This record gives sequence, C-alpha cells and structure tokens, in this order.
Amino acid sequence: MSLEKPLVDDVGSEILALAARIFPICRSITGDGVRQTLREVAAHIPLQVHEVPTGTAVLDWTIPREWNIRDAWIKNARGEKIVDFKRSNLHVMSYSVPVHERMSLAELKQHIHTLPNQPDLIPYRTSYYAENWAFCMPHRQFEALRDETYEVCIDSSLEDGHLTYGEYLHKGETEDEFLLSAHVCHPSLANDNCSGIALLTHLAKRLSGLKTRYSYRFLFAPGTIGAITWLARNEDRIHHIKHGLVVSMLGDRGGPTFKKSRRGNAEIDRAMVQSLSQSGMSGVIEDFSPYGYDERQYCSPGFNLPVAMLSRSKYGAVPEYHTSADNLDFIRADALAESYRLINETIGVIEGNGTFLNTHPKGEPQLGKRGLYGAIGGDKDAAAANMAMLWILNQSDGTNSLLDIAEKAKLPFAVIQRTAKLLSDRGLLKPA
Amino acid sequence: MSLEKPLVDDVGSEILALAARIFPICRSITGDGVRQTLREVAAHIPLQVHEVPTGTAVLDWTIPREWNIRDAWIKNARGEKIVDFKRSNLHVMSYSVPVHERMSLAELKQHIHTLPNQPDLIPYRTSYYAENWAFCMPHRQFEALRDETYEVCIDSSLEDGHLTYGEYLHKGETEDEFLLSAHVCHPSLANDNCSGIALLTHLAKRLSGLKTRYSYRFLFAPGTIGAITWLARNEDRIHHIKHGLVVSMLGDRGGPTFKKSRRGNAEIDRAMVQSLSQSGMSGVIEDFSPYGYDERQYCSPGFNLPVAMLSRSKYGAVPEYHTSADNLDFIRADALAESYRLINETIGVIEGNGTFLNTHPKGEPQLGKRGLYGAIGGDKDAAAANMAMLWILNQSDGTNSLLDIAEKAKLPFAVIQRTAKLLSDRGLLKPA
Amino acid sequence: MSLEKPLVDDVGSEILALAARIFPICRSITGDGVRQTLREVAAHIPLQVHEVPTGTAVLDWTIPREWNIRDAWIKNARGEKIVDFKRSNLHVMSYSVPVHERMSLAELKQHIHTLPNQPDLIPYRTSYYAENWAFCMPHRQFEALRDETYEVCIDSSLEDGHLTYGEYLHKGETEDEFLLSAHVCHPSLANDNCSGIALLTHLAKRLSGLKTRYSYRFLFAPGTIGAITWLARNEDRIHHIKHGLVVSMLGDRGGPTFKKSRRGNAEIDRAMVQSLSQSGMSGVIEDFSPYGYDERQYCSPGFNLPVAMLSRSKYGAVPEYHTSADNLDFIRADALAESYRLINETIGVIEGNGTFLNTHPKGEPQLGKRGLYGAIGGDKDAAAANMAMLWILNQSDGTNSLLDIAEKAKLPFAVIQRTAKLLSDRGLLKPA
Repeated sequence: MSLEKPLVDDVGSEILALAARIFPICRSITGDGVRQTLREVAAHIPLQVHEVPTGTAVLDWTIPREWNIRDAWIKNARGEKIVDFKRSNLHVMSYSVPVHERMSLAELKQHIHTLPNQPDLIPYRTSYYAENWAFCMPHRQFEALRDETYEVCIDSSLEDGHLTYGEYLHKGETEDEFLLSAHVCHPSLANDNCSGIALLTHLAKRLSGLKTRYSYRFLFAPGTIGAITWLARNEDRIHHIKHGLVVSMLGDRGGPTFKKSRRGNAEIDRAMVQSLSQSGMSGVIEDFSPYGYDERQYCSPGFNLPVAMLSRSKYGAVPEYHTSADNLDFIRADALAESYRLINETIGVIEGNGTFLNTHPKGEPQLGKRGLYGAIGGDKDAAAANMAMLWILNQSDGTNSLLDIAEKAKLPFAVIQRTAKLLSDRGLLKPA
Repeated sequence: MSLEKPLVDDVGSEILALAARIFPICRSITGDGVRQTLREVAAHIPLQVHEVPTGTAVLDWTIPREWNIRDAWIKNARGEKIVDFKRSNLHVMSYSVPVHERMSLAELKQHIHTLPNQPDLIPYRTSYYAENWAFCMPHRQFEALRDETYEVCIDSSLEDGHLTYGEYLHKGETEDEFLLSAHVCHPSLANDNCSGIALLTHLAKRLSGLKTRYSYRFLFAPGTIGAITWLARNEDRIHHIKHGLVVSMLGDRGGPTFKKSRRGNAEIDRAMVQSLSQSGMSGVIEDFSPYGYDERQYCSPGFNLPVAMLSRSKYGAVPEYHTSADNLDFIRADALAESYRLINETIGVIEGNGTFLNTHPKGEPQLGKRGLYGAIGGDKDAAAANMAMLWILNQSDGTNSLLDIAEKAKLPFAVIQRTAKLLSDRGLLKPA
Repeated sequence: MSLEKPLVDDVGSEILALAARIFPICRSITGDGVRQTLREVAAHIPLQVHEVPTGTAVLDWTIPREWNIRDAWIKNARGEKIVDFKRSNLHVMSYSVPVHERMSLAELKQHIHTLPNQPDLIPYRTSYYAENWAFCMPHRQFEALRDETYEVCIDSSLEDGHLTYGEYLHKGETEDEFLLSAHVCHPSLANDNCSGIALLTHLAKRLSGLKTRYSYRFLFAPGTIGAITWLARNEDRIHHIKHGLVVSMLGDRGGPTFKKSRRGNAEIDRAMVQSLSQSGMSGVIEDFSPYGYDERQYCSPGFNLPVAMLSRSKYGAVPEYHTSADNLDFIRADALAESYRLINETIGVIEGNGTFLNTHPKGEPQLGKRGLYGAIGGDKDAAAANMAMLWILNQSDGTNSLLDIAEKAKLPFAVIQRTAKLLSDRGLLKPA
C-alpha cells in the first residue's frame, strides 16, 4: 500500500464543513433525516444506499415503522410559541407520535424532559420502541412555565416505511476487510455523531484514491438497529472482516479514548495502541466493555469481530454529551484533524504489518558489506541508529510480526516498517 | 440453593457464647478435652464422632498414645501453690508426662517456658512426640522465683487410647463436597481456635436447614494428626471435595487474612477474593505457603485439594498468638459475625456460580420487547443500570462463568447472579 | 559438584594483576596483540589456541586480513612527536592502513577523531572493514594544533594472515556445556575487556580443580567476528550448550547489569536473577536486546542459545566507556572480586539445580520422627526455620525445580539446595 500521498493540510476544516452541513438535519433511526444525511455523504463518495422495509426480521429485532417529523411546538395561552422544533430538533423526543391538543400545565409536565443539573440545556431523548410523545426543554424554562392552558402540536408520522443505511466499499488487493462504522441516527448533536460521519466520509474519499492491501468498508447506519440490520444481511460474508473501528465524537479535544475489541489483543487493538503511543497525545486505553456504540453488536458473542472503538471524550463523560451543548461550538477543525491522522496512522500500521524471515539467521549478517552499517566502529551513538535493523534481524524467526517487533524494541512502527523494507531490498528478509 | 433465609442478627453473640463455653476445656491432640468439646458441638448439630486407636498407621504417621491430665501445680518451700493448672491449663506443656518430685530451682528451670519479651503472659507449648514435661509461666514470675526447693506435680496419663474427631455432613443435591475444617487441639486459646469451632458449628446448624447444591462436610479434628487421620481414612472419597476452607482465629478484628489454596486459582480462591472485595473490609490476600493450619495437609502434593484458609489476624502475627492473652477478651461478637457473613457470602458465590449460554448470541437481543430495558433512550444514567445484563449476555459464550463475568465487569457477584436469573427466566440464558 | 573449595580471598587482586599485565598490549580483531594476550592467559590454564586463515568463510562473514602495528606518530613542523602510539595505542584507529606523509593541518584534520564533550580523553575508534587510517586525540589538543605542515606515520601492516582465538574446556560429568565468553579485541581499555579476560582466566583456573556436573567452555575471542568464527566452526556441537554467559566490564563498581538471554526465562536467566537478588547488590536486570556484546551472535535467531550477558556498568552508559579513561584506575580489586563471586554463585545455582519428587506426597511426612523438626511445638519462631523443608516437600511433585522452589519460597537457593540434600539423605526426596 502507498499511504504516502500527503494528508491534505486543511482536512480538519473540510471535515468540520461537512459536519456543519449535516448538523441541522433531524435524524432518527429511520426517516428522511437519514436519507438527507446520506445524500450529503454521497456528494463525496459513491455511497450505496439500502432501504429495508418495516417489519423485516433482523436477528432478534424487527425493522420498526418509519418516523418523520415536519414541525412541532408548544403555544402558551396567548398563542405564543414557547417551544419550537424549528429552532432545535432536540425539543422533540425522537419517535414521538403525533399529537395536537390543549392541556393543562399539569398534564403537559407529564410529557416534558429536562436536565435539572444543567438547567440551560435541552436534553436529547428517544422512545423508539414505546409509543409516546414528549418535548425536551431547558429546566430553567420548565420551572418558569405558568399554570395555564397550552396547545401542543407534534406534526409527525410513524408509518410503515424503511430503515435506511449507506455503505461504501473501497476495494483493496485482497477481500480481507477493514470495517469503519459511524452511527447516523442522532439529530443535531455535532460531536455525536456529525463528527464521525464527516470524518469517515473524508477518509473514504482519501482511500478511494489509494492502492491498499485491505478492502475498506465504510458503514453509515443508525445505531444498534442499523448495525444489527447490516449484520443480519451480511452474515455470510462477515468472516472477511479482519479489523474494524467504530467511531464517534471525534471533534472535541478530549481523550482520545480507545476501547479495545472484545478479543482484547486483536491486531486492530495493538495497532491502535501503537498509533496512540506514537501520536504524543495522552489518551485513555480501555478494555472492552459491552456498553458504548455499535461495537456492542459487532462484538456480540455470536460474531466476536475484532472491532474496536475510537472517540475523543468518552460517551457520557462530558457535560455536553446528549445535550444541546453538543453543538458546532463543541467541535474543532484541529481536533478533527488529529483524529483523522490517528485513524490514518492506525490504518498505516495494519497495512504495513507482516511477518518476515531473516535469510541469514545464524549470527548477525554482515551489514557493513551491504552498506547498511557505519564504517567507523567504537562510536557510542552510531550503533544506536542501527537498533531497528538489529531488532528486526534478531526477531524475524517467523513468529514475530513487525508490530510485535516495534512493541519489543519500543521503536515507532514506521521506523520498523521502513527498515524492514530496506532489509528486504538487500535480501536479508523474506516473507515468512 | 436458597441462601436467602436471613442471617440471625445475633449470630455473633451465639458464636461467642459457644466459644466461651468451650474455652475452659483443656484440649490436646487426644484425650477427654477433645471429647468434651465435641459434645458441646453435638448439642447443636448431629455430629458423628470417630475414635481411632493408638498405634493406627495414618499415612506417614501413627496415632499417638492418648493424653489426659487431671491436675498440676508447683509448690514453693512453704507449700504454697505458685503455679496451678486449675487456674490456666496453659501452665502445663501439652503432653507432659506425669511427674511428682521435689527439686532445686536450677533443676526446675530446665522445665519452664516463658516469653521474655511478653513477661506477663503464659506461653502455649506442646511436646507431642518427645517424652518430656514442662510448665509455662509469665517471665516476670519466673525471674522472681526464689532459690529454694520446689515440689512439682503433673497428674497426667499418657496411655494407649484413641484419637477423637467429629464430622458432620450436610447433604446437598450433589455428592460434590465443600469441606470446612477447624482444629480442636488447642487448650484455652479463645481465638485459636474456640472461635473457629464455634463458628463452624453455627454455620453447620444454619446450612442444615437449607437446600444446597453442594454437600457440606464439617470437620472438627486435632491439627495435623487429625487432618492426616481423616485423609488416611477417606482417601477413596477425597475426589468429591470440590472446594474447601480451613478456618481459625475468626474472632479478633484484624485481617481478614485469606490464604489461597495451593492451586492458586481454584474456584474457592476466586470466590473468597470476590467476597472479600465485596465485604468492604480491607483484608490481606496471600498466595499459598506450606506453613499454617491444616491446609498444609489438604494441599500436600499427593492430594492438592482446592482448600484455602481464612483467619482474621494471621497466625503468629499478633502478640496474643499462642499466649494467655488469647482469651475471651480477645474475641468479639461483631468480629465473629463479620467472619460468619464472609464465609456465608463465599458459600453463596460457590453455590450460585455457573456457566451459561446466551441464547441470542448474534447482536444484542432486544431487551426492550422483553421489558428488560428502560423505554426512554438517551439518558446517560439509564444504561448504566443495565450493565449487568449487557455483561452477562456479551460474555456468556460458554467459556465464562458468572464469577468470571463478575470479575470482568467489576460488579458484585450477587448482582450478576440475580441478573442471570432474570435473563434465564426470560429465556435469554440457558445452562452451558 | 563440590563448589565448596573456598574462594581465594585475594582473587580480586589476582584478577587485577592479570588485567594490568595485559592492559598495555595493542589488541585488535586479529594480529599479534591477540596472540600475546592469549599467551598470558595460557600461563594460567591449558588454553587451546586456534588460527583461522584470512579469507575463510564463516557464516555470512569472511576472515579479514591480519592487522599488525609497530609504531605511529605525528610530528609537527619542528619534528616534535605530538602524538605517539607508544604512549597510548588508542591514538591509532584500529586497522589503520600504513601511511607516511607530510600534510597540511587541513588535510590532517580529515584523519583525526576526538570527543568534543570529553576534551581531555582519547576516543577508541576502529575501521575493520573499510580501508582507512586515522589518529585519535584529546579534543583540547586537536583545537590547539597550529596551522603548519605535519609528518604522519603509521607503521602498520594489513596482510593475509590469521584470526586467533583461544578456548579451554573444563570437562564435567556430562557433555552438557556452560559457555563463558569474553572478547579480546580491544586495545588498552582496562574494564572493556581486560577485566573480563582476566576474570574468566581465574575462574577457569579454579574450576579446573573441581568436579562439576556441567562441562565449562571458556572462549577468548575477538568480538563479533571471533564469536561468529567459533559458531561457524562448531555448529555441529552447539546443541551441547545448555547455559552461557558473555562477560565484559567486570571491574568497575557500577551495576551489576544483567541482560537476559533472548529466551528470557532460560535457566541461566533465572539463576543469574537468583544470584543477583542474594548478592545484596542493587543491580539492573534487563530483557534481551540485540545490541551489546557477543550475546548478539549466540542469540541470533538461527542459534537462539541460552546465553546471557553480565557487566558492571552498562556498555555506553558511563563516560569512561570507549575512551582513554577506561584505564587501570577505573577497575578495582574489590569490584572484580564481587563480580567473580556473582558468577560463581550463578554457577553454583546451575550446578545445584534439579527436580525431585517427595516420596511421601500425601500429607506432610512426619519430620519429627526423622529428627528433622524441633521437638517443642507452639513456638512462633521454630517453625519458620523449617520453611525450606516445608516448601520443598510441598512443591516437589515433579514439576518444580529447586530453583522454582527458591523463587516461590523467596528463600536463598543455597538454603533450598542444602535442605534438599538433607531431605534426600533422609529418604524424603528422590530424583524426579
């Protein structure tokens, strides 16, 4: 693979621009918001969009009815809109059934969610599988509501339709796949997950121009039900997935947070640890746990795929999480660019990894006669520069991959990879 | 098993009362003191008492002659009893042969043990396998002895007789056994081991009223020779022992000290660690070592049984150990109750452990449609409450027991067990 | 084996005396300096000296031409010798080709090595495989050189000849070998490696008088090419090597530095760790890395011999390393004696190690009736003294060697070995 095409300098700004473009869309696990989002993605890469009908059985689940919403508001006694879906789609609980009624404050309060500890923020709430309706509002506003009659309207529909997801396959030299997956079901939450959608789109765009060893599958699907749908429809080819990464919340400056796959020592786990350690960022590496994003599905025991998860701040661990504060001010071009580089580095490790055999395993081969060694001996520093060569030759007995060697030698994978290439060119290494 | 019968609130006081009742008895590795102690135990549980004749070969050992003692004293030149067995049976070295003589101070001193560093305490000493006699006294008294003629009398007998031990088997659903063992050979030492004898008696009493999976064997036997005798006489059925715990010194407020079995990762070892960590007590967990109580015999290489050891303070590590300060003031009802709860918790883990299979291993099963999941999504806290369900479903692939899952999830075993029951009831788990 | 012959008290002084004797010799990877050094060694032990002709293929290498030097100097314009090989053989880069010319300062400077950060020291430099010539001098002198015409002379020869190495085999009861290897190619560097050559000579001398289980092979060979030559000529018998140690820099007071073999858990690795921990010295234990001394060759993947490395300060880690400050003031008799004892202790562990079976594995055997146990029980301290017996009996199930047991018991190997002997004598242990 040649990943040497230089990274576009302003990739962070480009990702941010796409995130900003899709931020206003009201997404849910089904409906036109997902379609509109996938159209924005498809403006950059040749996305294949799938529509799966309501009622289709997918593993233990069933595709639900499709939800769409046109408008929603609460009017006070004077007819003033005190809550307006058009100002923030977080105001309506996702999958709220239609309603248009007058009601007392007491009655209305049964249908309002707030965050008492974050009184200025609108919470994000859903009710996909229980028929219900609700509004979300800042707690401060909720407490100021006067005891009067309100008119509430949710102009939504919940009808047979489809679940929509998109995928793009970049074909590599082999059918072995690297899965990259982002959820597309959250409404106007910038970090979670406009950042992930936009970053994967630009990553796919870049890879589409490169020759790679692995094939790269990009999946843009609603959380949980979308991943389950994709797994159900692709069971026969899931064995091609050799590595995978679920991404979300890639635009804030926290973390990075890296959660290993259920296997715990898969190549993706070790490649990601390698990239993190070389990035100079102080991140957090966590063992697998069964709560989080769609790694929950990919790592369910019946699949147990080597799929890890990357985010910046960890879900649930920042005050902005699942509130109206997760807006475009919360994500930054520089953080997006860092996340992008980190994933590219990880892909570089996976692409470049391999196991070799020292062709002269008895004693050290004479590096000097091959021009691989400084001619003047005795210098304390000279040999240090040759450490990568010595490590690779010493460890390449067929049991250690280049990634193993980088870990043992505590040298950057890129140095090991470059040096292995040099040794291969001089005939000192051959594929194991 | 139903261990849900609530623990008697005043179990600590009940254990303390029994310990106090057996405290005055002069026990040794044989003799009427052991018989009298076992009669007190038998007042609570249907104890089976075994008598093994002197001279019987048991493994590498031989049952020694039986020792009994009626009285012992030292009189000074004025005929005053300056040491009196009736005031403390520690005054006589256990297995002292009979003596009745007048002798000089110099001669007497050859037969006196003291603790120079603990000058007010009487030491506990034995001479089971070398014919000898001696008195034990406070060092301060020893130093004040005047140079005069003393009359010493030990009215003991060392004759062919029996070694006595008791056992009680609570039958469970299976023949697999959990062995609980306490030594009964120490004279008036309250913690070591009136506490252990009394606690096991009350534990046996409680279990006798419960339906359990495992059978529970309670062994009350003299240290070393008693355990060896039991092993020798039960070699053909030792394979039934799946778990075991040797207990001693359960009444002081130190520790708890938990020493793993020789295997180091037996289920009893892990269950005990789990109970300790959930107890909130700051205990000490030690690897196996071949010094201590009867775990030395159960864990000898020819048996290598999964038998661990529990005490509060560690043997030898407190100044009261093997002295007259190990009296009824040293043990407390609350500490005994804590120890009792700890062992019950451990039994609960062993009884409740098992390995299950997720019946819907591909993707997560839809918990919502089974009423197992909060209906309103997006709430940061709601999902945390479901962690036990997620962990069990994710890990139940046939290789992880509930105890494994509790350890990985860092959740209390009781929560995992209860949740596994719920998932089984809803058909999401089946026995592996 | 009986290693009980007491160590000569002044062994440190004897080693130092031999090191001082060989210090002035101008060694290189070939030539008369090596021969003269080996003659000094042969004055103590019956050394077998090998001569391998220039041009002989050895593994991936070829024996180079032989280098000898008689004199070298730089004269200034007034004909004064400002650099004189006779004052320090470090002044000439090893393997410098002959030269006798007049030249300008500018031209001369192309052929001078200095250490700008250590301006008073002469560096040690070599150019074995690239034809070149150079002088080495203190940087302070270099900076003071006047701009005039210099006359330079190196009276050396680089011609077909031989590579020379010496070996001595002390035959033990078995053909299994312990390899001890020191490089002999450095000129006047006292610690690196006059210390190692002299120490191994005296160690060989001592072992020659002892009956040992293993055979001990002492190899005195030039670094890299010498080890490679020996490996090439002995490939068919390398499987006899069960343990090995490369030594260098044994005379300063740093470290000790112990680098494990590539295997990482070979018996030599564990024996060395045991000796270090018992020595009371605070040393450094390092995992294998492929830079260092001739362990690089012995641990190349095609051989992967269990050969570790011992030095005091670590190569490259002290300012004296590879400079004229590595002189006879840098090494000390006491440090040499410490190093000598450490290696002897390690040999003692290797010689004494073995795996035994407890002949009475069920329950503890009765130690008392065999006179192996204190007769008075109850004493807190008495039993501690028996810990070695208890550990050996408990662990001797055929899977644990005495070294394993020493590690688990955290007891000195010597105590375990001595106690195992006692238990064997009493019939409680037999060879596994």
